[in-house]
Amino acid sequence: MKNMVNEQQYNDLLTKSEFEAALRKIGKERYHDNCRFHHLLHNGLLNKGQVQAWAINRYYYQINISIKDSALMSRIKNPELRRKWIHRILDHDGRRDDEGGIERWYKLTDGLGLDREYVKSTDGVLPATKFAVDCYVSFVKEKTILEGVTSSLTELFAPKIHKERISGMLENYKFINDTTMAYFKKRVDQATDDADFVLDYALKNAKTREEQDSVCDALKFKTDVLWVMQDALYHSYINGHVPPGAFMPEDFDDRYIENK
Amino acid sequence: MKNMVNEQQYNDLLTKSEFEAALRKIGKERYHDNCRFHHLLHNGLLNKGQVQAWAINRYYYQINISIKDSALMSRIKNPELRRKWIHRILDHDGRRDDEGGIERWYKLTDGLGLDREYVKSTDGVLPATKFAVDCYVSFVKEKTILEGVTSSLTELFAPKIHKERISGMLENYKFINDTTMAYFKKRVDQATDDADFVLDYALKNAKTREEQDSVCDALKFKTDVLWVMQDALYHSYINGHVPPGAFMPEDFDDRYIENK
Repeated sequence: MKNMVNEQQYNDLLTKSEFEAALRKIGKERYHDNCRFHHLLHNGLLNKGQVQAWAINRYYYQINISIKDSALMSRIKNPELRRKWIHRILDHDGRRDDEGGIERWYKLTDGLGLDREYVKSTDGVLPATKFAVDCYVSFVKEKTILEGVTSSLTELFAPKIHKERISGMLENYKFINDTTMAYFKKRVDQATDDADFVLDYALKNAKTREEQDSVCDALKFKTDVLWVMQDALYHSYINGHVPPGAFMPEDFDDRYIENK
Repeated sequence: MKNMVNEQQYNDLLTKSEFEAALRKIGKERYHDNCRFHHLLHNGLLNKGQVQAWAINRYYYQINISIKDSALMSRIKNPELRRKWIHRILDHDGRRDDEGGIERWYKLTDGLGLDREYVKSTDGVLPATKFAVDCYVSFVKEKTILEGVTSSLTELFAPKIHKERISGMLENYKFINDTTMAYFKKRVDQATDDADFVLDYALKNAKTREEQDSVCDALKFKTDVLWVMQDALYHSYINGHVPPGAFMPEDFDDRYIENK
């Protein structure tokens, strides 16, 4: 009986290539390059106020990445894994010869004409963005290390979107230039290295079908975080349902304020 | 000098009537009776699939209320306050002579023709709903008791919305009847009593301007939770951007699936 159970488990376990294919399928279906807001952004179909709204909301995500990574590291007992992970915090927060990703994000918001103190206050961020990002931080605090690490598997799909973003935005918006896009130029290479590490980690450390499923769910969860941010931007700034207290672009028609 | 500081604090403190007026102003501006989805729902302008989507998403909120209240009670050191609070859990989970609010919610979902096991799985709930509600549970775990208690101040504005909902939905939808609306009929009186208690608690226990402000922020946070749920429903089921994996009504045009 014991052998039958083991055999069943063995059969249920996906091979590494099946597992990788399952992860890539999730990305293909659920990564936010499927979202309409993404296409509008990259194809030059947004006005400046809508790009400002995107930058302000995405900023809330940016500043929480190092907090998320610190929370994850606080739970990792293996120094080798922490040593591999810590460069993510340095990438965002900066190091001696590099200003870091958060500083580079201000180049974008400065270039868009946003007041830096307003951006830093996060006062104008959509509640849906805050809820999604806060849940991402909670996720790495509460779930297994395997799930916390592999929620970053979205990086597998990031380099393509970053490249599209750089070329599409440089080409289509007169208020975007090489300086303001510095964040994404740097992230193309960083995200490729990070994704290789996380995929390898997932393939090596998910040793039961249950663990493989938990990795798939962690990736789905993370795609939901990014997707909800895009949908909230679309609903607020394309369809014009800006919730009370959220960023209101200067050129925006105030009929778009939901409770007016 | 000390007197000046005290006088300044005294001047900054809102009187009880000013404080109550500030809370009521937040409700007037930010309660989700301002949302378009709410008006469509009550005025009979939704089709059955859209009402099903609302019931499934709101279910996720319902089942987390007792979890939220248990988390809050686990942090309250004063037995008298716990004794006041515990009836909320009993209201939702049921007691000897009362099936409770969650069971009454199934009368609604049954009446709408939804499979009860599917509803219970929460598989079709929008990610934005899950993030908002999960953040509400986290809020009462992490904030002060004062903030946790007073995040329920939205109940001040609930009886009106429940009455509108009962009359509007009974009048406008042939698939809604007295049985399916049992949850809201019961909640009209419950929420009135609960709101009186919480308002009184806020007025008595917020003794500095800082505490008064924290209560205002707790109420704003809670209005954001409810508002995000309405906006996500509107975006998905009115404007037709249903995210991957979410509930898809039978009669829904699958062009509305975002990643098709």
